[in-house]
Amino acid sequence: MEIKVKKNVLGKNDRLAAEIRKYLSEKGIFAINLISSPGAGKTTILEETCARLKDKLGIAVVEGDITTTRDADRIARHGVPVHQIETQGACHLDARMLENALEHLDLDKVDLLIIENVGNLVCPATFDLGEDAKIVVLSVPEGDDKPAKYPGIFRRAKVLLLNKIDLLEISGFDKEKALRDLAEINPDITVFETSATKGTGMDEWCQWLADRVAEKKKK
Amino acid sequence: MEIKVKKNVLGKNDRLAAEIRKYLSEKGIFAINLISSPGAGKTTILEETCARLKDKLGIAVVEGDITTTRDADRIARHGVPVHQIETQGACHLDARMLENALEHLDLDKVDLLIIENVGNLVCPATFDLGEDAKIVVLSVPEGDDKPAKYPGIFRRAKVLLLNKIDLLEISGFDKEKALRDLAEINPDITVFETSATKGTGMDEWCQWLADRVAEKKKK
Repeated sequence: MEIKVKKNVLGKNDRLAAEIRKYLSEKGIFAINLISSPGAGKTTILEETCARLKDKLGIAVVEGDITTTRDADRIARHGVPVHQIETQGACHLDARMLENALEHLDLDKVDLLIIENVGNLVCPATFDLGEDAKIVVLSVPEGDDKPAKYPGIFRRAKVLLLNKIDLLEISGFDKEKALRDLAEINPDITVFETSATKGTGMDEWCQWLADRVAEKKKK
Repeated sequence: MEIKVKKNVLGKNDRLAAEIRKYLSEKGIFAINLISSPGAGKTTILEETCARLKDKLGIAVVEGDITTTRDADRIARHGVPVHQIETQGACHLDARMLENALEHLDLDKVDLLIIENVGNLVCPATFDLGEDAKIVVLSVPEGDDKPAKYPGIFRRAKVLLLNKIDLLEISGFDKEKALRDLAEINPDITVFETSATKGTGMDEWCQWLADRVAEKKKK
């Protein structure tokens, strides 16, 4: 019973996500869905991304949090339009929540839509929001076994941001092992080594984003 | 529809959890449910706990993982009975999974049952397993805003293990702020500052566990 209902809910979610994808594509907007464990650095990455790209591209942000508007407040300080979704206990964003959020944003001048999901490496992976790319953030202190242990999100992501790379040594993180496991799960994934607080790798990551936005405009 | 089904599922789960709680209590077993984000250090804490207590207490471990038996293998090396639950995609353990796992363990000589949940700060909080205490692990690199942003688990936990405390300075973690938020959410929670890899705080934590086991035996 539970499984059947979950399938129905996911089917409904997928149909709405497909509509959102079509709508955003018609507007020429490239959309990413940023997913990680709590505290991997999503919001800091987002702040650094906004700081680097906001004068070059039209950016809008949707912030998903179970409660509090702390992350949205951090983004708003960069002068980027942001809408907060408080999920009231739900462990992931779904397409319906995103649809409601998009009604609060003026998308006419937007080239890049960034959706920050709830901090959770599991559930957000299975809910399509209509994004062009899922971006997974893994922070080094979480450990090198995470791709093998949580393959769902690593399989579905287009990009891995291996964040807090400055803590590699102190964390005893075996990068070769993590990347070997990752290559088995998803050989096509693009990896950027980043430290959002130190700025490492952020220019390369922002260039990747700018290239995708340019591709989307050409279509 | 979804919400009603979820309520029914939770109701069913709660009834089974109550049965498990009664069964474990009759055997004089103290049971904990260890919950955290991926990579906060649950398995290392568990290894260090087993190493310190296995000659003093009868310990059994149930390991929850979405996939792989890596964590169970790490525990088995300590000579402690362990049963692995692979949740096959599910983001949390439920009482039914635990009931099945308990059938694989000889509980007659067990004083302390440790259940390591799936790495997820959200969903495991709402599924009662029949444990005596939920123990939440927050690792310092995850950031000082986590109690306020994920209040569900911090409200329900009896103990917080503030782990990777050796990374306090490098992570810029504001301990006063985190503990202030925590006190608002759950003034009764007991906090241990730990570094499982360095051994910090592990004796105090193990003493707390041993005291609870002794209390349970008296009842």
